[in-house]
Amino acid sequence: MPTIVVEVMPKAELLDPQGKAVAGALGRLGQTQSALANVTGVRVGKRFEISIEGEADADALAAVRELADTVLSNSVIEDVVGIHVQDAPSSAVA
Amino acid sequence: MPTIVVEVMPKAELLDPQGKAVAGALGRLGQTQSALANVTGVRVGKRFEISIEGEADADALAAVRELADTVLSNSVIEDVVGIHVQDAPSSAVA
Repeated sequence: MPTIVVEVMPKAELLDPQGKAVAGALGRLGQTQSALANVTGVRVGKRFEISIEGEADADALAAVRELADTVLSNSVIEDVVGIHVQDAPSSAVA
Repeated sequence: MPTIVVEVMPKAELLDPQGKAVAGALGRLGQTQSALANVTGVRVGKRFEISIEGEADADALAAVRELADTVLSNSVIEDVVGIHVQDAPSSAVA
């Protein structure tokens, strides 16, 4: 059962308050951990995993692209930055 | 200025209410659009883009992995499913 991944990020030209908050928190942590001191910005977006029946063929991808543009993202403030197929739902990296 | 992408998804064995809501909405839309009728599940996670100064070398990736595990994800309910480097912040796909 293939999984189609849709990635949505806030538009680059808009303020991302959630990302700003994370960057601020990292900055405060970074005062004691030098590896974090060189983070210059954080943006937070969404990642959808859509499981479908059947083949992840061009028709399925076109349908998901349509979905991504109309339902999964708000085109006023967000961009769909990636749509790709993976074979199975994600599991944790080691 | 390289960007490190961190992908966080809810653990596979846990209910994802946001994903269920999206799947339900797609199901209702799918009654008139047959291409959506074969969606069997949706899970919603987060995607962080972390801009850093300097090189995205092993040290930087190790620092970001540490961050991902401690700050960007809640290990009780979420898994870090991917950490990778991209050259620039994402822009919209055509």
